[in-house]
Amino acid sequence: MLAVHLESGRVEVRRVAMPRVPENFARIRLIAAGICSTDLELQRGYYGFKGTPGHEFAGVVSDATDRSWIGQRVAGEINLACGKCEWCARGLGRHCPRRSVLGIVKHPGAFREFLTLPVRNLHRVPASIPDEHAVFIEPVAAACEILDQVKITRGERVAVLGDGKLGLLIGQVLHAHGADVILFGRHRHKLAIANRAGISIEKNGKKLPEREYPMVVDATGSPDGLRSAISMSTPRGTVVMKSTVHGLVPIDTAPAIVNEITLIGSRCGRFEPAIRLLASKKIRVDDLISEKFPLDRAQRAFERAATRGILKVLLYPR
Amino acid sequence: MLAVHLESGRVEVRRVAMPRVPENFARIRLIAAGICSTDLELQRGYYGFKGTPGHEFAGVVSDATDRSWIGQRVAGEINLACGKCEWCARGLGRHCPRRSVLGIVKHPGAFREFLTLPVRNLHRVPASIPDEHAVFIEPVAAACEILDQVKITRGERVAVLGDGKLGLLIGQVLHAHGADVILFGRHRHKLAIANRAGISIEKNGKKLPEREYPMVVDATGSPDGLRSAISMSTPRGTVVMKSTVHGLVPIDTAPAIVNEITLIGSRCGRFEPAIRLLASKKIRVDDLISEKFPLDRAQRAFERAATRGILKVLLYPR
Repeated sequence: MLAVHLESGRVEVRRVAMPRVPENFARIRLIAAGICSTDLELQRGYYGFKGTPGHEFAGVVSDATDRSWIGQRVAGEINLACGKCEWCARGLGRHCPRRSVLGIVKHPGAFREFLTLPVRNLHRVPASIPDEHAVFIEPVAAACEILDQVKITRGERVAVLGDGKLGLLIGQVLHAHGADVILFGRHRHKLAIANRAGISIEKNGKKLPEREYPMVVDATGSPDGLRSAISMSTPRGTVVMKSTVHGLVPIDTAPAIVNEITLIGSRCGRFEPAIRLLASKKIRVDDLISEKFPLDRAQRAFERAATRGILKVLLYPR
Repeated sequence: MLAVHLESGRVEVRRVAMPRVPENFARIRLIAAGICSTDLELQRGYYGFKGTPGHEFAGVVSDATDRSWIGQRVAGEINLACGKCEWCARGLGRHCPRRSVLGIVKHPGAFREFLTLPVRNLHRVPASIPDEHAVFIEPVAAACEILDQVKITRGERVAVLGDGKLGLLIGQVLHAHGADVILFGRHRHKLAIANRAGISIEKNGKKLPEREYPMVVDATGSPDGLRSAISMSTPRGTVVMKSTVHGLVPIDTAPAIVNEITLIGSRCGRFEPAIRLLASKKIRVDDLISEKFPLDRAQRAFERAATRGILKVLLYPR
């Protein structure tokens, strides 16, 4: 079968053996997968990654020791937890210190014809969610995680910084939740997507507002984002850190301390609320799909995904 | 009267006019004042400061439009709020955008024979608190602020980083609150003070524990402190940022995001709990007083306060 392989910055497509199915695992035939900014960072060599990336996918179970799963259309949580430690006992396998992570840490990812995951990571995708939308369950879950971490009341003013894929999803999730969202970005056509989804938008000018929003989400993916978010927050406000920036980010901590701002790191989320939101059509994701490629053109797909202005690039088995 | 004057890094003692007493203000005769790390930073030119510093003090009201205050022994909250804005209406004058701050921003500080403050900033000091302890009300209030911001349950494990003045007070406040505190520091004699107060101590070795504490307070005053605090925190843990470091602090935000850590900026606190704690003798501050000087030897007092190993230096009118 075909599998994408990243190594030393190169994207290759290799012919590899079909993966085995360990006890309590399922083998999943890929329907579609999405290239995430994290995949582009893996390509750049973060985490010393080498292997098959991909953690946003929809597929059909082709084999599993629990045969009731066979033939089910599924999405899958990406953290493979040990199931035994205190974190797992608390339902926080996403923080299990012994976890591997699909396509990121010690478990080959979804950019291949067949992948594997523990059955307990799987979620059935309801018929009301088309294949292409199901690929967004994982990033929408990451956006929903914010609502599991902080209390956002109906009508609360929230600034979302960044009009990339994640910023556009976060804006929509918080808007669907009832927040009064304003999305700040640099790209006219990306802001237009948010605007069509009913979100207020603001093209970044020379100067961002200061001390203005009780809740600010940084989804810029840039080192400047966190600094801007801190200065836009009201005293005692909350800044959600949603964009992983690799390397050291120089932060002026003084304003965060003087204004007693709370900064919250936010990563993966539960799939249930994401599936409900996508099934309800309250989130528009069609606009976020920029281009589609078969697996054997993965190299080109990665190039396009890294191109300025491009949003989600999808990969298909063929 | 005598007043300390900071300018371009120099500490001078000047003879100045007695301050006027505006409506709703009190004039306070200084009993004693403490030199805080912030004062040393003002000396180094942060905030472009020029004038009389000092915001930790005890004094006696010598004049006030409300004459019932005259003769009262007092401590005073340092933020002079406008009393009219939404922050003031919410009881958060400490975050009033139009505030001046005693000895820090646009209001001459306590290192002079007579100072002024609005009467509403004053707190009577109960007879059970000696003069020298009353000087610690302000920094103990800053330590107590943590308990207003985060919920710390009885027996909860809290790591406090830094064995300076603030770290030693924070350790004691959290210990008195019932937390299971462990204080990390570099100085044997400072750690011994914490130990005598009943706090567990740990001399920083080559390697600090990782993913170990659900609550970590950074009171190191060093750019490394926040990085250490983040790596010592368990996933979903809380890091309280208590030490203002000027300039940019390079932070690796990735672990804070991956482990979904909450970072909370923390500054000044309410005086009431600090007065109660000091009156109860649950906090030992005598050990924290290193040296004492009259105002006219302020230059030497500042030199000593900046010397490695020295804790609190007190100033007296004469």
